[in-house]
Amino acid sequence: DTPLTIAGTTYRSRLLVGSGKYRDLDQTRAATEASGAEIITVAIRRVNIGQDPNAPNLLDVVPPSRYTILPNTAGCYNAADAVYTLQLARELLGGRKLVKLEVLGDDKTLFPNMPETLKAAETLVRDGFDVMVYCSDDPIQAKLLEQIGCVAVMPLASLIGSGMGILNPWNLSLIIEQATVPVLVDAGVGTASDAAIAMELGCDGVLMNSAIAGARDPVRMAHAMRLAIQAGRHAYLAGRMPRRFAASPSSPMQGRPA
Amino acid sequence: DTPLTIAGTTYRSRLLVGSGKYRDLDQTRAATEASGAEIITVAIRRVNIGQDPNAPNLLDVVPPSRYTILPNTAGCYNAADAVYTLQLARELLGGRKLVKLEVLGDDKTLFPNMPETLKAAETLVRDGFDVMVYCSDDPIQAKLLEQIGCVAVMPLASLIGSGMGILNPWNLSLIIEQATVPVLVDAGVGTASDAAIAMELGCDGVLMNSAIAGARDPVRMAHAMRLAIQAGRHAYLAGRMPRRFAASPSSPMQGRPA
Amino acid sequence: DTPLTIAGTTYRSRLLVGSGKYRDLDQTRAATEASGAEIITVAIRRVNIGQDPNAPNLLDVVPPSRYTILPNTAGCYNAADAVYTLQLARELLGGRKLVKLEVLGDDKTLFPNMPETLKAAETLVRDGFDVMVYCSDDPIQAKLLEQIGCVAVMPLASLIGSGMGILNPWNLSLIIEQATVPVLVDAGVGTASDAAIAMELGCDGVLMNSAIAGARDPVRMAHAMRLAIQAGRHAYLAGRMPRRFAASPSSPMQGRPA
Amino acid sequence: DTPLTIAGTTYRSRLLVGSGKYRDLDQTRAATEASGAEIITVAIRRVNIGQDPNAPNLLDVVPPSRYTILPNTAGCYNAADAVYTLQLARELLGGRKLVKLEVLGDDKTLFPNMPETLKAAETLVRDGFDVMVYCSDDPIQAKLLEQIGCVAVMPLASLIGSGMGILNPWNLSLIIEQATVPVLVDAGVGTASDAAIAMELGCDGVLMNSAIAGARDPVRMAHAMRLAIQAGRHAYLAGRMPRRFAASPSSPMQGRPA
Repeated sequence: DTPLTIAGTTYRSRLLVGSGKYRDLDQTRAATEASGAEIITVAIRRVNIGQDPNAPNLLDVVPPSRYTILPNTAGCYNAADAVYTLQLARELLGGRKLVKLEVLGDDKTLFPNMPETLKAAETLVRDGFDVMVYCSDDPIQAKLLEQIGCVAVMPLASLIGSGMGILNPWNLSLIIEQATVPVLVDAGVGTASDAAIAMELGCDGVLMNSAIAGARDPVRMAHAMRLAIQAGRHAYLAGRMPRRFAASPSSPMQGRPA
Repeated sequence: DTPLTIAGTTYRSRLLVGSGKYRDLDQTRAATEASGAEIITVAIRRVNIGQDPNAPNLLDVVPPSRYTILPNTAGCYNAADAVYTLQLARELLGGRKLVKLEVLGDDKTLFPNMPETLKAAETLVRDGFDVMVYCSDDPIQAKLLEQIGCVAVMPLASLIGSGMGILNPWNLSLIIEQATVPVLVDAGVGTASDAAIAMELGCDGVLMNSAIAGARDPVRMAHAMRLAIQAGRHAYLAGRMPRRFAASPSSPMQGRPA
Repeated sequence: DTPLTIAGTTYRSRLLVGSGKYRDLDQTRAATEASGAEIITVAIRRVNIGQDPNAPNLLDVVPPSRYTILPNTAGCYNAADAVYTLQLARELLGGRKLVKLEVLGDDKTLFPNMPETLKAAETLVRDGFDVMVYCSDDPIQAKLLEQIGCVAVMPLASLIGSGMGILNPWNLSLIIEQATVPVLVDAGVGTASDAAIAMELGCDGVLMNSAIAGARDPVRMAHAMRLAIQAGRHAYLAGRMPRRFAASPSSPMQGRPA
Repeated sequence: DTPLTIAGTTYRSRLLVGSGKYRDLDQTRAATEASGAEIITVAIRRVNIGQDPNAPNLLDVVPPSRYTILPNTAGCYNAADAVYTLQLARELLGGRKLVKLEVLGDDKTLFPNMPETLKAAETLVRDGFDVMVYCSDDPIQAKLLEQIGCVAVMPLASLIGSGMGILNPWNLSLIIEQATVPVLVDAGVGTASDAAIAMELGCDGVLMNSAIAGARDPVRMAHAMRLAIQAGRHAYLAGRMPRRFAASPSSPMQGRPA
C-alpha cells in the first residue's frame, strides 16, 4: 500500500478525527490516541487553541508536536467568514497552510453551501492555503474544487452528526473514479462498518467526530474505527470476490442498487 | 470483552474460516495464518484429512496441534448422509466431538434443507456430538435447534459463495436476541464491511471461505477480515451513536428499513 | 396478461385483503370495496362469520355471494389447532375447500412455525382442502409445500403487521423462479411501493391487511394498493429497462444488493 | 387531492414524460397516450419540432393542442448554450414561457452542472421564462433555485438513463420539506415502484423517459407508470402505517437507513 499523501506530506493513518463533543479534554486525549489518527481537525470558532490564553487549550492534549492540527471553519455560513476564520487560524498555528474549508448551508442540516464553498476555495488557494474541502457528493463540483487547486475533496456520506452512513455510494464512486487528489469521506459515518464501506469504495481516508465522541464508549469506538479503516483499505486492495446470485439474473434484480 | 465460548472451549478469535477453494495448500496455510482464525472447517467429503493416505493432507498445513479442525458435511443433502459423514470424521479426528452440520437443499442454491437439518441435529446430539449447525435465518427454527441441544446456530447471511452480504439483518437480529448459545453468521459475507456489520448486529462470530479464497489477494483479504471482525465487535461493545436525521420524521422515512 | 388462477378458479384482482383491524364494519366494507379484492381472508378464531349468531357478522358487509371468503388460522401455534380450525371453517362456510393455513411460531414475531406448517399442510391436503400456505421465505420449504400439494405458497416479505416491506427480494426471487403454483406475498407490505415491488419481482399476488387498515385513511390506501398491484404487474410484464451506471463497474459496486 | 399547479396552470396528471428514445413516432404517440401525461418534454437540440420543415415533426404525434410541450436543453453544457436554446424554443413554440432548464456537467454522467445551472436560471427568470430546473439533490441549491424564481425544482433520483431508482430518499425529503414550489423527480426512475416511492416521499410529480422508452413493451410500461404515480400519490395522502419491528430496538437497527 502507498501511504496517504496530502499536499506533499505522507500519513500512515487514513483516519482523521475531529476534536469536539467529548466529555472533557481527558476523553479527547484518550479517544484521539486510540484512533491512531495523525490529523486532528479543530473548529476554530468553537475551540480554544490559544485565542483565549486563560482557558484550557486543546493543544495541551493534542499537541502539534505530535499531531497535524487541521483548522476548520465549522459555523461559517459564507465565504468571507470562512476565509477570515482560516486566516486567523494560520496566525494562531504559526503559519501552517493546511486547512479544512467548510461553508454550511444552514444550521439545521449542516449541508455544504456549494456556491460559497467554491468562492472561498478560490480565494484561499490564491492566498497560498492548502485547502481540504468539505463538499456535497456532486461529482461535477468535486472536480471543480480539484481544478481550483484544492488538495483534497471531502464529500459528505450523510449529514454531519447524523450517523446515517454511506447514503449514496454511487456518487462517491463517481467522485473517486475521477479524482486525482485524495478523496476523504467527511461526515455521516456512524459505526465501524460505515468506515469500512467508505474505504472499500476506494476513498483515501475518512474524517469523523460524532461517531466516536457520540458512542457510549468513545475510546473503544475510536479503536474500532482505527481497525475498520484498516480493514476496509486492505479489502479494497485485496480485491473482493465477485457477487454471484443463484437465481437467474431476471431483470428486476439485475444490478439492483443499494 | 468476554471470549467466544463454544461447547465449553474459549477462543480469542471470532473469525472462523473454511479451507476450500484456495489455489494450493501453501495459499491455504498463508491465508489461514493471516486470518488469525483458531477454528478451521473442513468438508469431509471433499478434502483429504487422512482418508487417502497417499494424497496431500490438509492437516499438514493446518495442523490440529495448532487449530481446532471443524469437520463439516458440505455436499450432504439428507440427514442420513450428514450423520454418517460426521461419524466418519470423528474417527479420522481421534474422537473429537465438535462438528458443523450442514444439510443442503439443492446444489444450485446450497440453501439449507431445514427439515433434514433438524432431524440430523437430533441424531447427532443424541450420539454425543457438539453440533454447530448451518441454518436459514428463521428465528423459530434457530430456537428449535438450540432446544435440541446444538452448541451454536449458524444462520446464512446470504447464499453460500454468493458474497451478497447481510441480506436480512432483521431476521439475524431476532435470532441473536433470543439465543442463549453463540450465533455465528455462516455464508454470504463478501467483503470486510459485511463481516463488520454481522458483528455490529451482535453476532458472536462469522465463518467464511469464499470471501477470502475468492479475493484477488486472499492473504491480504484474510488480514482485512481479521481486522473487520475486531472492528465490528468493538463497535458493538462501544455502543454506536444514535442515528439522527435533520428532516422531520415524516412517515415515509420513519424506521425506514434496509 | 393471464388471470390469477388458484385451485382452478380465476380472479381478476391480484390483491387479497384481510378483514381485521378496521374501526368498524362500515370501514371494513368501504376499504374492501376500494381495494377491488375478490378474496377476503378471515381469522376464524377472531372474527364472527356465524359462530355467534347474536353478534355482528362480517359476512353481512363482505358477503360470500360477492367475495371469496378465505378462512385462515391466525392465532394457531401448532398443526392440530390449525387443522381443527379449518375443519370448523369448512362447516361454517358450507363445505368450501379453499383455506389459508398459518401456524405461528410465537405471538411476538408471528413468524411461521415451519415444521408445524408442513405437518398441518400434509393433513389438510389429505383431507381434501385447497391449501394456500403462509410460510417463511425459504425456497426449499416453499418447494416442499408445493410438493405436498398446496395450491399457493405465501411467503412473508417481513413480519406480519410490521410494514417493513420486502426485506429479502432475493429469497422471494428464488421461490418465484422455482414455483409451479402461484406465489403470493403475505405479510410485511407497508405502503404502495412495497406492493409494486412484490409484483415486479414476479409474484402472482399480494395479501395484506395492516397496510390498509393501519393507514390514516384506510379507504384511500386500499385504492392506492389496488393501483400499485396493477402498476407492479404491468411493469413486470412490460420488462423494465436494464440498470446502467456511469461509473466503471468496479468490484465494490458490481451486483451490489439491496 | 389538490391538482398539480406549475406557474399558475393546473394539471391532472403528475407524470411528465420525455419524447426521446422511442422506436418511431407511432410508438412515441402510443406510449405518450398510455402514460396519461399532459406535459411532454422535448430536447430542442435533438428533436424536430419545426426547425427542419422537411423532416418528420414530433408535434404531429404530440400536438400542442393536446399536450403542454416543455422544451428542454438536453445536450447543453454551459449557461449560454442553454439560454440560447430556450430562446430559440420560445420562438418555435409561439412565445410559450414554460421551459425546462438542464445544464449538464459531462456527457458520461449527465449529472447537472450546478454553477452553470444557477447562472442560466437567473438569466432565464429575468428574461421572463417560467423555469423548471433539473438539479442535483442538494437541498441548499434547490432552495437557491427557488429563490431565484424557478417555478419547479427537479432533482435527479439517480443518473439520467440509469434506471437506478431513488438512491438518496433522504436528500429528496429535505428538498421537499423546504420547498414552496413543486418538486418533481427528474431522472433515475427505472420501474413502477421507483415512481411510487418518489410520490410517497411527497414529490409533486415525476418526469421520466428511459424507463418507458427503454422497457421491452413501452406502451404497457407507460400505463404501469401512470398507475404507479397515482398509487404513490394516494399512499402519500392516505398516510402509511407506522413501521414496527418485533426485535427490541437495539442500537444497530434503530433508524437504519436505506
